[in-house]
Amino acid sequence: MRIIELSDYKLYVGDIWETLKIQLENQTYNKVAILVDENTSKHCLPLLQQKIENSNFSTVEIASGETNKTINTCIFIWQQMMTLGLDRHSLLINLGGGVIGDMGGFCAATFKRGLSFIQIPTTLLAQVDASIGGKLGIDFAQIKNAIGLFQNPQAVFIDPSFLKTLPYEELRSGFAEIIKHGLIADANLWNIIVGIRELKPLEMEDLIYHSLNIKRSIVNQDPFEKGLRKVLNFGHTIGHALESYALESTKPLLHGEAIAIGMICESYLSHKQKQLPSVDLKKITDYFLSIYGKYQIDQAAFDQLIDLMRQDKKNNGREINFTFISKPGVALFDCTISTTRIIESMVYYNGLAIPKSH
Amino acid sequence: MRIIELSDYKLYVGDIWETLKIQLENQTYNKVAILVDENTSKHCLPLLQQKIENSNFSTVEIASGETNKTINTCIFIWQQMMTLGLDRHSLLINLGGGVIGDMGGFCAATFKRGLSFIQIPTTLLAQVDASIGGKLGIDFAQIKNAIGLFQNPQAVFIDPSFLKTLPYEELRSGFAEIIKHGLIADANLWNIIVGIRELKPLEMEDLIYHSLNIKRSIVNQDPFEKGLRKVLNFGHTIGHALESYALESTKPLLHGEAIAIGMICESYLSHKQKQLPSVDLKKITDYFLSIYGKYQIDQAAFDQLIDLMRQDKKNNGREINFTFISKPGVALFDCTISTTRIIESMVYYNGLAIPKSH
Repeated sequence: MRIIELSDYKLYVGDIWETLKIQLENQTYNKVAILVDENTSKHCLPLLQQKIENSNFSTVEIASGETNKTINTCIFIWQQMMTLGLDRHSLLINLGGGVIGDMGGFCAATFKRGLSFIQIPTTLLAQVDASIGGKLGIDFAQIKNAIGLFQNPQAVFIDPSFLKTLPYEELRSGFAEIIKHGLIADANLWNIIVGIRELKPLEMEDLIYHSLNIKRSIVNQDPFEKGLRKVLNFGHTIGHALESYALESTKPLLHGEAIAIGMICESYLSHKQKQLPSVDLKKITDYFLSIYGKYQIDQAAFDQLIDLMRQDKKNNGREINFTFISKPGVALFDCTISTTRIIESMVYYNGLAIPKSH
Repeated sequence: MRIIELSDYKLYVGDIWETLKIQLENQTYNKVAILVDENTSKHCLPLLQQKIENSNFSTVEIASGETNKTINTCIFIWQQMMTLGLDRHSLLINLGGGVIGDMGGFCAATFKRGLSFIQIPTTLLAQVDASIGGKLGIDFAQIKNAIGLFQNPQAVFIDPSFLKTLPYEELRSGFAEIIKHGLIADANLWNIIVGIRELKPLEMEDLIYHSLNIKRSIVNQDPFEKGLRKVLNFGHTIGHALESYALESTKPLLHGEAIAIGMICESYLSHKQKQLPSVDLKKITDYFLSIYGKYQIDQAAFDQLIDLMRQDKKNNGREINFTFISKPGVALFDCTISTTRIIESMVYYNGLAIPKSH
């Protein structure tokens, strides 16, 4: 097991159970409750109960999925916390993906003005993306994470063995964030990634650890997203728009699937605007296609996608804000570009074919 | 106008308008909204609109009263904030009593992970009690302030002229907290207070200012209520129990009315346990009766009241935690006492008669 130290909490990566057990025994929490959904209740909770023997923990179960990341589910969770008699000296363990972590953290941080919580992310996306930064919240009035706050957990425990229980699509969705960390900040990591042809849960540990170190270093240098931290948005300007658009279609995209397409488009723009060599553009394009396959962006939706990009809360005024890369491992933030070029990048993507070698 | 400096914000007491105007002009908020209830909309908002000319502020209006301090009202406020297009660069001004300040602050602190808010408390209780400490929240499942968090406002503006719009009962309710600040920490303030026979809104400014300075000094020395800050609970152990009990009766007590009775009972206990001189006990008793009149504690409810005292979240285990005074201006926290004595103090209160001189 390896440890990543953040300003006021730690991330444990690997075989987490001995450390978690000691941490729970050494603390004087009067009560411990675990928040799960029907999936983590079935696939992850038994492991926790087996590893932490004699644990007298209560569980609160909610229905899985982003559509349940609402204030009504919070009301249910708060009521359960009340019924269980939790108070400021209790602990909530959030065992699940991004929805459980974001919403459970929000409920803990606001219950009796705040009780301690521990995050045990069980999806690859939550492990590499949601573990650092302290962002908690719920969706409200069709806006993602519209209600929430910043609050750090007591600790984050990341066990790659949970990934065995994950559908392949979820695994490769989280993997997109790992690829992103390589592309924006670590050419060595990128070179390792390009060699990976098949995603295997138990071989993810090193990649998760390196990926988290990259994110930690970036967030540490710019905790309030004034500048550098924006590099983490690579692939997300176009990717988020695609994700929102696809949500309302019959074929929704997972977060990582959408930003994989976003990274292809934004690499194309990086090539046109920031001299990303064509050999790298081809390597990036081919690799994403080999893992994520090919999607077709609806040409009739280009204007709507541009509108969605304009609504991004990270923009300043009407300009659409991008992060580009000048080569793998080197990112440039606060770039802007004409909408014609943006559309050109989506046309580029649509014209691609999956390389024959795959 | 006088200024009280806190760790990361300021309290302005007196004629606040010029300072508020400058503060609003110098900041670059993209939008400003004001939260009011039907009372402050009628009695306080016109003054603000008259003083801050050319103000292009939106208002959000909710129904007044503690019964509306709920998550459903928060949902309504968040929806209004969404409709008005507020974002992290906007400002919410909470214009009202404790409910508006606590709930509006909570909504601001959680909207898009937090936007700035300014408190303009319009009741004496909110001005002297809720302005310092950063406690925000709502009631949930019959528990007061069960959901909430700590977050400081940008600034607090306290204008005693708002008190002219207040019913007399509300004025004397807030006044109880001022008396408390004298009794626990400032014999001079207490001596001034005893000379006050009639509460006049416009003569409150000095008392508010001194009272806030006392609270600031106590909270500064013990921000997380580990010790000293508990002195602020004088009168509240018995007072809160009476307030909760009376809430369900046909004759509810205002917060200050309840803690006035609590301070009489706890002064009696201070006399029995901590040598508070009988001359001071008589002076305290007579003064409270002269302002608040006489209430009768239901003898059949003594056991229920003791149970309510046991549920106080400030207790440690089953012992009921008290603050006593050894003389006016000197408080002792973490005192415990037998339930027989507690009942004796309520019997003492019930046996009192309003002094003839009043």
